[in-house]
Amino acid sequence: MAVEEPLELRLHAPGGVGTEDAGAGLPLGVLMRTPGHDRDLLLGWLISEGLLPTAFTLDPDPENANVWHLRTPEYARLAAGARLAVSSSACGVCGSGSIEGLAVRASGPVWTAGPLDAAFLAGLPERLRAAQPGFAATGGLHGAALFTAEGALCCAREDVGRHNAVDKVVGWAHGQQPGPLGGQVLVVSSRAGFEIAQKAVTAGIGVVVAVGAATSLAVDTAAVFGVTLCGFTREGRLTVYAGADRVRAGP
Amino acid sequence: MAVEEPLELRLHAPGGVGTEDAGAGLPLGVLMRTPGHDRDLLLGWLISEGLLPTAFTLDPDPENANVWHLRTPEYARLAAGARLAVSSSACGVCGSGSIEGLAVRASGPVWTAGPLDAAFLAGLPERLRAAQPGFAATGGLHGAALFTAEGALCCAREDVGRHNAVDKVVGWAHGQQPGPLGGQVLVVSSRAGFEIAQKAVTAGIGVVVAVGAATSLAVDTAAVFGVTLCGFTREGRLTVYAGADRVRAGP
Repeated sequence: MAVEEPLELRLHAPGGVGTEDAGAGLPLGVLMRTPGHDRDLLLGWLISEGLLPTAFTLDPDPENANVWHLRTPEYARLAAGARLAVSSSACGVCGSGSIEGLAVRASGPVWTAGPLDAAFLAGLPERLRAAQPGFAATGGLHGAALFTAEGALCCAREDVGRHNAVDKVVGWAHGQQPGPLGGQVLVVSSRAGFEIAQKAVTAGIGVVVAVGAATSLAVDTAAVFGVTLCGFTREGRLTVYAGADRVRAGP
Repeated sequence: MAVEEPLELRLHAPGGVGTEDAGAGLPLGVLMRTPGHDRDLLLGWLISEGLLPTAFTLDPDPENANVWHLRTPEYARLAAGARLAVSSSACGVCGSGSIEGLAVRASGPVWTAGPLDAAFLAGLPERLRAAQPGFAATGGLHGAALFTAEGALCCAREDVGRHNAVDKVVGWAHGQQPGPLGGQVLVVSSRAGFEIAQKAVTAGIGVVVAVGAATSLAVDTAAVFGVTLCGFTREGRLTVYAGADRVRAGP
């Protein structure tokens, strides 16, 4: 059975001075996730939310494996960002408002490879599935993977949450080498909604391939930021929703 | 293509007196959803979060269809509840802590019908699919439906978010007749994670049938609150994860 447990991230200033709750820390968020690769998950989530500090420590609680502590001199910025996340202005509550909010903190990928064959992209979900031991065992885990433009599998992760699976691979990549992933292809076992497109934009990923369909707002977001978005991938075929200039039709 | 847009709910005291922001209201939450049945969605979401007031008005913004306004004399309780949702204590961050948090505001269903045939339950997802015009058109929408124990389809709804689809049917049922849904079967086109189990508990739904697999925390939650949870439904068969006393094996 797919394991699901809550994971909480708490924010502290270095030494605990100046925090709202110097002891327990300020709760930044709770993620319902499959335990494992928790550090990568939190790093990827911070990148997606535009909250990753330049200097920080990130450590598990000594007594509770479901609690992690983030200590950073940028405490004030992160605390304000977490509060901002639940407030917005009336004119901003629409699809284009969501895209404008994203533009404040991300500029989208710079594609560093040439165009890719459609048949190559359409074959990636099967390779992700082959790298998903948990799905084979439980049938209840989503997967995400990063591939190079040449087809090398860099990292594959699983989680009960499809967004968590993406955060885990993005966090892993950041641990290898911080910076945008302009020459990488993100493959997800799920559909592609706004949040998947948003994570590609914030991580600087140039091409996304989803097994399922894409939503209207995901397609609009991908188009605005120059992300190639493919979906409905089955039997060697896929639909290119945005950024078709990076996809070469097969023979 | 499946349409996805943000929907924001703002809280006001009657007349705007005593609110933190008398003009715009206090943002209670933003849901990324497929427009349509927005009032039902918000009612279902308020029930799931344990925030539904006994007296209130709920109206769309006159200028922005993606903004709704909730006015209630219980302003203080809801504002505090929304703040509490992002804070917790260290010992509570585990699966049993999530279940205990739910127990504070819900007691689980009282099943008012007799046991159900496994073959009957296993056939419900196909009937949900038949009631999903959006999925047939886009392939990108999740569905949820309520059936009576006798097999009558009460309500089926679709959304890009599987949790939204459940909130839409729960909100619809509340509009018909407020109260627990002890004799009803909830069918979801997705997997069953903690949030699906939580919504069944808060709505007082006795039986849940998921097309996909259930997570560990969903099964624990269903078992604690007396919800029958079935999943992995395919080709006329299903797995009963919890509450098997309400399921009669087929011949």
